[in-house]
Amino acid sequence: MQEHYRIGLGEDIHRLGAPRPLWLAGMEVSPSGGAIAHSDGDVVLHALIDALLGALALGDIGDHFPPSDPAYRDMASTLFLEKVLPMIHQRGYRINNCDITIRLERPKLYPFKQALREHLAKLLHVDIEQISLKAKTSEGLDAVGEGEAVFCQVAVLLARQSVPLSL
Amino acid sequence: MQEHYRIGLGEDIHRLGAPRPLWLAGMEVSPSGGAIAHSDGDVVLHALIDALLGALALGDIGDHFPPSDPAYRDMASTLFLEKVLPMIHQRGYRINNCDITIRLERPKLYPFKQALREHLAKLLHVDIEQISLKAKTSEGLDAVGEGEAVFCQVAVLLARQSVPLSL
Amino acid sequence: MQEHYRIGLGEDIHRLGAPRPLWLAGMEVSPSGGAIAHSDGDVVLHALIDALLGALALGDIGDHFPPSDPAYRDMASTLFLEKVLPMIHQRGYRINNCDITIRLERPKLYPFKQALREHLAKLLHVDIEQISLKAKTSEGLDAVGEGEAVFCQVAVLLARQSVPLSL
Ligand SMILES: [Zn+2]
Ligand SMILES: [Zn+2]
Ligand SMILES: [Zn+2]
Repeated sequence: MQEHYRIGLGEDIHRLGAPRPLWLAGMEVSPSGGAIAHSDGDVVLHALIDALLGALALGDIGDHFPPSDPAYRDMASTLFLEKVLPMIHQRGYRINNCDITIRLERPKLYPFKQALREHLAKLLHVDIEQISLKAKTSEGLDAVGEGEAVFCQVAVLLARQSVPLSL
Repeated sequence: MQEHYRIGLGEDIHRLGAPRPLWLAGMEVSPSGGAIAHSDGDVVLHALIDALLGALALGDIGDHFPPSDPAYRDMASTLFLEKVLPMIHQRGYRINNCDITIRLERPKLYPFKQALREHLAKLLHVDIEQISLKAKTSEGLDAVGEGEAVFCQVAVLLARQSVPLSL
Repeated sequence: MQEHYRIGLGEDIHRLGAPRPLWLAGMEVSPSGGAIAHSDGDVVLHALIDALLGALALGDIGDHFPPSDPAYRDMASTLFLEKVLPMIHQRGYRINNCDITIRLERPKLYPFKQALREHLAKLLHVDIEQISLKAKTSEGLDAVGEGEAVFCQVAVLLARQSVPLSL
């Protein structure tokens, strides 16, 4: 048995300041100052979904869940993930590991990091050792640094088991 | 037969507003408002070339095609790619898959995405399922968001077939 | 023998203008105009460490070397790397290859690129062909473009040899 791999890279940015909770990785990390977006504005899940879709060249989150569609208004992004994961599994792939970086000035995410990882591992049906989540500030620079926005980037490696052809 | 992999990550940014077409992935997506650059300013091909070179640690696009060299003035970046691909193949590698993200406010790239993917697959001599191309805006934030620039980032996985040593 | 892979993606940004040398990849590239940071502010080593830790989901540089700890004040980031590398090796992994991109306006890094690569290869105990280092400007755009900051992003692929289960 050998493994075949695919790489995916997803990113997302949203303005902050909406009168609703700030959602990250499917969890509420602040009751206010949320992301301005058509759905719940969860940059972690959006970037993750784009990384998963990108790894298998299945389009992007906007192709599958168009913001113009009123059905997705304020929708929890976990529901998007629930629709995307089977697309990966049906093609014989599983998540080998993913490395997530969040850029946000406030609130400080340090107290949330472990909970976010655990939640993601559950959502993705993988071990927590397959999920890395890092939180950075932008040192006061540009839109994220000025507290206007939250950004997330996700690198993912998918793997598929395959029986090698005999030589 | 097993596969050995290499990872590459390339990025490029150019200011917009040159009185020439906007080139992306080797295609003209707008007749005006092009990228300000010495060559044709195609951020997708430049980021892709840097990802390919980076995966095999062969330097970067500036090493191989110096902007100071008048020979490359206004040159189509497809010609750069034609010189870089054989460098990959000669070392026994092929493109396993690549995941491309473009950040641009206008024009909206949705209508072009499939054509850009098909064109890239042809340029790279791979199946379209090996090419993912995603287009994002920057939600009005920073230089890209203000319409001043176009950015592209490309993650690539190269693979080489190798006969395993017998145990 | 087959190889199992893990992907890591690290990034770092620091403001420039501190009255000390500018450190990149463990080398002094300018005697002044250094990065503002608690440690030496070496964005290349910080992004690389975050990529290595992220690949194995071992947290981030701040978890292992908290900026609040006075022990790390002005510390050379090479010492951080010396503590992180054994964590990778103890888990049976080695660096397959890494692709590094630095964004900086001045000084131009072209004359330093080869020396930085060679130095990194030594620090990481790998061949130079496993290290790619690219230097870009931000074309005058945003904080990096205005010369206020230096940014680095590192993609890494780790590999572990494993004897396949017999079928
Ligand atoms: Zn989003
Ligand atoms: Zn370019
Ligand atoms: Zn740092």
